[in-house]
Amino acid sequence: MKKLNIGLIGHKFMGKAHTHGYTDVSVFFKPEIEVVKHTICSNEQSVKDVAEQWGWKNTTFDWHDVIDNPDIDVVDIAAPSIIHAEISIAAANSGKHVFCEKPLALTLSDAKAMVDAVQDADVVNMIGFNYRRVPALALARRLIDDGEIGEIFHFRGIYQQSWLSDKGFPLAWRLRKMDAGYGSHGDLGAHVIDIARYLVGEFESISCIQQTFYKQRPIPKIEDGLVAVAGDEMGTVDVDDTSQMLVKFAGKKTSGYIEVTRYGTGHRNQNRIEINGSKGAIVFDMEKMNELEFYTTSDKPHVQGFRRIQVGEADHPYTANWWPAGHIIGYGDTFVNQVYDFISAIRDNKKVKPDFKDGYICQVILDAAQNSAETGKWVEIKY
Amino acid sequence: MKKLNIGLIGHKFMGKAHTHGYTDVSVFFKPEIEVVKHTICSNEQSVKDVAEQWGWKNTTFDWHDVIDNPDIDVVDIAAPSIIHAEISIAAANSGKHVFCEKPLALTLSDAKAMVDAVQDADVVNMIGFNYRRVPALALARRLIDDGEIGEIFHFRGIYQQSWLSDKGFPLAWRLRKMDAGYGSHGDLGAHVIDIARYLVGEFESISCIQQTFYKQRPIPKIEDGLVAVAGDEMGTVDVDDTSQMLVKFAGKKTSGYIEVTRYGTGHRNQNRIEINGSKGAIVFDMEKMNELEFYTTSDKPHVQGFRRIQVGEADHPYTANWWPAGHIIGYGDTFVNQVYDFISAIRDNKKVKPDFKDGYICQVILDAAQNSAETGKWVEIKY
Amino acid sequence: MKKLNIGLIGHKFMGKAHTHGYTDVSVFFKPEIEVVKHTICSNEQSVKDVAEQWGWKNTTFDWHDVIDNPDIDVVDIAAPSIIHAEISIAAANSGKHVFCEKPLALTLSDAKAMVDAVQDADVVNMIGFNYRRVPALALARRLIDDGEIGEIFHFRGIYQQSWLSDKGFPLAWRLRKMDAGYGSHGDLGAHVIDIARYLVGEFESISCIQQTFYKQRPIPKIEDGLVAVAGDEMGTVDVDDTSQMLVKFAGKKTSGYIEVTRYGTGHRNQNRIEINGSKGAIVFDMEKMNELEFYTTSDKPHVQGFRRIQVGEADHPYTANWWPAGHIIGYGDTFVNQVYDFISAIRDNKKVKPDFKDGYICQVILDAAQNSAETGKWVEIKY
Amino acid sequence: MKKLNIGLIGHKFMGKAHTHGYTDVSVFFKPEIEVVKHTICSNEQSVKDVAEQWGWKNTTFDWHDVIDNPDIDVVDIAAPSIIHAEISIAAANSGKHVFCEKPLALTLSDAKAMVDAVQDADVVNMIGFNYRRVPALALARRLIDDGEIGEIFHFRGIYQQSWLSDKGFPLAWRLRKMDAGYGSHGDLGAHVIDIARYLVGEFESISCIQQTFYKQRPIPKIEDGLVAVAGDEMGTVDVDDTSQMLVKFAGKKTSGYIEVTRYGTGHRNQNRIEINGSKGAIVFDMEKMNELEFYTTSDKPHVQGFRRIQVGEADHPYTANWWPAGHIIGYGDTFVNQVYDFISAIRDNKKVKPDFKDGYICQVILDAAQNSAETGKWVEIKY
Repeated sequence: MKKLNIGLIGHKFMGKAHTHGYTDVSVFFKPEIEVVKHTICSNEQSVKDVAEQWGWKNTTFDWHDVIDNPDIDVVDIAAPSIIHAEISIAAANSGKHVFCEKPLALTLSDAKAMVDAVQDADVVNMIGFNYRRVPALALARRLIDDGEIGEIFHFRGIYQQSWLSDKGFPLAWRLRKMDAGYGSHGDLGAHVIDIARYLVGEFESISCIQQTFYKQRPIPKIEDGLVAVAGDEMGTVDVDDTSQMLVKFAGKKTSGYIEVTRYGTGHRNQNRIEINGSKGAIVFDMEKMNELEFYTTSDKPHVQGFRRIQVGEADHPYTANWWPAGHIIGYGDTFVNQVYDFISAIRDNKKVKPDFKDGYICQVILDAAQNSAETGKWVEIKY
Repeated sequence: MKKLNIGLIGHKFMGKAHTHGYTDVSVFFKPEIEVVKHTICSNEQSVKDVAEQWGWKNTTFDWHDVIDNPDIDVVDIAAPSIIHAEISIAAANSGKHVFCEKPLALTLSDAKAMVDAVQDADVVNMIGFNYRRVPALALARRLIDDGEIGEIFHFRGIYQQSWLSDKGFPLAWRLRKMDAGYGSHGDLGAHVIDIARYLVGEFESISCIQQTFYKQRPIPKIEDGLVAVAGDEMGTVDVDDTSQMLVKFAGKKTSGYIEVTRYGTGHRNQNRIEINGSKGAIVFDMEKMNELEFYTTSDKPHVQGFRRIQVGEADHPYTANWWPAGHIIGYGDTFVNQVYDFISAIRDNKKVKPDFKDGYICQVILDAAQNSAETGKWVEIKY
Repeated sequence: MKKLNIGLIGHKFMGKAHTHGYTDVSVFFKPEIEVVKHTICSNEQSVKDVAEQWGWKNTTFDWHDVIDNPDIDVVDIAAPSIIHAEISIAAANSGKHVFCEKPLALTLSDAKAMVDAVQDADVVNMIGFNYRRVPALALARRLIDDGEIGEIFHFRGIYQQSWLSDKGFPLAWRLRKMDAGYGSHGDLGAHVIDIARYLVGEFESISCIQQTFYKQRPIPKIEDGLVAVAGDEMGTVDVDDTSQMLVKFAGKKTSGYIEVTRYGTGHRNQNRIEINGSKGAIVFDMEKMNELEFYTTSDKPHVQGFRRIQVGEADHPYTANWWPAGHIIGYGDTFVNQVYDFISAIRDNKKVKPDFKDGYICQVILDAAQNSAETGKWVEIKY
Repeated sequence: MKKLNIGLIGHKFMGKAHTHGYTDVSVFFKPEIEVVKHTICSNEQSVKDVAEQWGWKNTTFDWHDVIDNPDIDVVDIAAPSIIHAEISIAAANSGKHVFCEKPLALTLSDAKAMVDAVQDADVVNMIGFNYRRVPALALARRLIDDGEIGEIFHFRGIYQQSWLSDKGFPLAWRLRKMDAGYGSHGDLGAHVIDIARYLVGEFESISCIQQTFYKQRPIPKIEDGLVAVAGDEMGTVDVDDTSQMLVKFAGKKTSGYIEVTRYGTGHRNQNRIEINGSKGAIVFDMEKMNELEFYTTSDKPHVQGFRRIQVGEADHPYTANWWPAGHIIGYGDTFVNQVYDFISAIRDNKKVKPDFKDGYICQVILDAAQNSAETGKWVEIKY
């Protein structure tokens, strides 16, 4: 069987999720290509231990080694956003296939350069909007494509996390524009924007307001990935804590709304999607990732109601590869589905979605949102 | 418009529920007969105030006055169970229509005599199994009649209240066999038995075990209807706190289970009914009284799921008379539906269900349950 | 006992709801004043039958008769919005207490005149924002007042009905600006605005966009209250079908969003309120009117979660007057609670909330919303 | 790092689940021992392909090879139940640690011999009741141990699958006593019995009835693991389709009920556990595996309610090893938790639960149930 050597850059939260994907893909799918965890890279010493624990064959502290190694076929970037562009472009220029975590870049021009690079090099490229690999959302897409919802009147996407409700939580990297590029909108909103494009279509214009509730937070004295420990000095949060965005879709009447927050007390990770159309409706909630609520006006009037579909049947997207019906999958397993689609595209020499272009469009929208938040005006989405 | 003079005996919880029924029936239904709150009776002084508050024209302390008054057309018995039989029989003998709260009587022979009396007198008679007037359960019955569930494999009815979880709750009348006749099984189980007969069919045999968790409780120093205040002396509970009953249905394979408890911590009044059949399934929960969950295998495979029907459409039983779709009714409103069906039967000179015979059959089953609990054996249901 | 003679103007949906309130209030509450259904008024012939059915003593076709009758203490206006102002002002000028359904008036100047009239006459005045009488929302208010939610970060109110998803639904009065004054925002949004003011506080500024999805609809050939039958000719809808409003609150950081629609396929009457604060969160959904979801960070970390409070305990607002715990009330019963508060205010010669001033403020906000929708700008709320 | 060589016997559903466990354990946990997928065994040719796909180094068609190979440290038995006993005993006699899927054996005497063998050999032994590794159930156990529920009044466990509702489903191996040993009770009930013992305690006596709804089914012409295709001839089902068991617990008042069915239309895999105690209550449902519903009477009265705990916090059992809070795990991930506990026991030379003894006790109860179903009597649980 042909081998596919992976070079993974990053060994924190997303590094783990991607490693899980490469590790498990052959247990659940038949990729007809051997996935090899060839090299893991990080500039931190701890990558050594992690490599041994996770089963990566080689380690390096310098990502250029990954690019320069002719044995490596795929560069997977799960590193801080600030170096996404540089690595991606180098990888593409070396003719390697590239997977990059979201957000694509910290600036729009970087993102554009990345798209150009992968297109020029004609390599398979993918961005980590893993929600498209949630079977329930893939089913939602199928229902919409099948016309089950009819014309779409409403799209609502509300993504709530709650870790900032606590005033004492430190000024971690996600709260620093320099490191994260964007605030809640870039982190959480990016997912919702991609879902909206996936399920409804392209954006025409947006209007956005943003807010930072607690502007001063303790600067961390220790920080490592998702872990941060408050120090004694205070610093200023320079990204948004919450964002509310009105959306008009291109060529559609659909009324759209996207709200994201890190102050959604009570919700650790609720990403609630609601769609109402002329023939039906859909509700999805990431807290109940294996369910899709679906309403259809084609039911007899006296038995109409939202049905709770346990998405896990052989008939559902992805799930035939997992367990017997009714045995749910987890968040991490969306990365297995994602890896499968990515390596299948490489194997078959095809394109895969969402690609860098999708990442770029998302970023155009994020920038327009910031622009709107500053000017108080509606902004057209152009790319 | 013809008048229908009501004589109501009892002025506590059920007296209030019935009064609500007579008071509101003409706001929501067109009974084409004028319902007059003629006389309310109780042997307690407080009935005077209550009559004025609730709008009853006359009061009496002696129920014989109600029977003897030729102006009164209907005797409605919401008094303690111990006098159900005597009043019902007297009322029937006087040619009055009779409504009696459940349980029909304290003994089977009394219940039998009551059935005989109303049948001999040929008066309209009804027993207060008000759950049949919950629109969602009436819809469940319609779905079953329509064959939507197919052959019924399973019936589960679990009725949980929680007021006895507290060790200090006094030895109120519902815990004294002398006054209540039965324990939790007679109180809560009677409802579930009637629902099982309504939705599935007649019982063939049952096996039952019962238990009294806390046998000693403080004797109340004050007691008035549902209100009881613990005194200093202890007494013995001589009825069951919980009951578990296996049920075989006549001429059906259906596997049945009925459990009731007053120690269902967390549930004030959960009456959960589950039915699984060859073509579909139904779940009802009294805590969500306006909803019916329905599953049908006739849905396309990839969109099968329990749908939550908001029972409040014009298409649904009873609800066209209430509010626009989506505006729910309450527990008390089942008594309005019940009154309407009862007085319609009187107006049209027809029978109405559930009648005294249904009350009697329920009691046969309750007695069989007690018999089974004592002997440890399966008991056939004969009547 | 002192009598309170009611004159009710209107005999359709709201006429029925108010009649239910006056009819049932003494069954559940002890108002210590006798509520008399004295006169019902409508310019339609059918009011005669309705009066007999509902138990009103007198009828008239001319609302001036109600104002001119010295026996009548209270004027209750459940008539079309177009005559709210004229009747209210006349009633106040006659020294009668006034209850008026929402919206207060069709224009802001009318609304202002109404406030002036009731304040000058110093009569008890109330507007029909009945959601404040939903026990679960009253409990939400109590929790917020008690500081259980802390500082409020987010308010979301999404009110969805679905009757317009059907293209063939006729151009009924609610879709005609001339008759309804406002579209979905005035009808549904008014409720949410009042709830937002009730739970969070006063509005500082808003930004709103509105849309009419289907602009042409068949003109009704028959129309009676909520019933409308499509005719052959088409006409133009001149009110909004959906409205999305961003809200800033006065003196608060709270991020607010209110969306209403009549195209919310799947939802007959969902009014979902979500509040996240620094110490807790609240979720309410009118489809589950007897429940309140509540999250508190004061729970031990390993058992934190949204709890589903069955609002029906003796400890909860209003519900001690109804049934034993766990027996739910319905939509109509909020009108009983409302009548009780209104007549108690009259009895005790006190003010009651929400009053005409609240109705006026709501209307200021609705007008600002329309202004914003036309100009695309943020509008300050001034009154 | 020390190596642990695994020999896995079985390559179907459970073989896949266990492979997933060994594959992923080092991504999420730090076992401080290297888990090697040394040999996979099956008497079917397809094991070759599976081995390559899943990453097992060696294959064999004869399980004796696994026992005889001195390099192999652990024998993991995911093979048909009929050979559990023979392999387990041989493995123990060879001094290997043994993991065996449930049910332990087809007969009680075999099960007893297996317990004796692993005890004599003093090897680490574990049985595959993976529900104990569901974080929500482990949390339930913690809450009970902490006294949060108080004295337990009720235990209900209802496990519903639905694959037999279809009359045409073939007579697969799980429906043949010869191959499966038991019917629904042995398959599904075994899990619930173990959960009841885990959460409440030991059984004192049981009473059980069983039923086979459709006795004749088509004999499969093709059969492979969970896949079976109906042929033309009919055969007789000789195991139970559904089982209802009343349970008395040793030294406790707890009223217990366990029902299992493969005709639970609407439920692919619902395992619903309900516990009510003097201080609180717990509800778990395998369809919502990452949630635990918890009610405590220690909450202030006006905010009591079932809270829905998203079990995924760092404070919860197992989940700190997975993802940030709010990112759920799946069914398969319980096998990762299970593998970790098993290999940790080997590493630390300790015992682990549930062990073969637990499997044996479960089987004593299953046999008592069958005995009870045949005799119609209560049966004491002795072992």
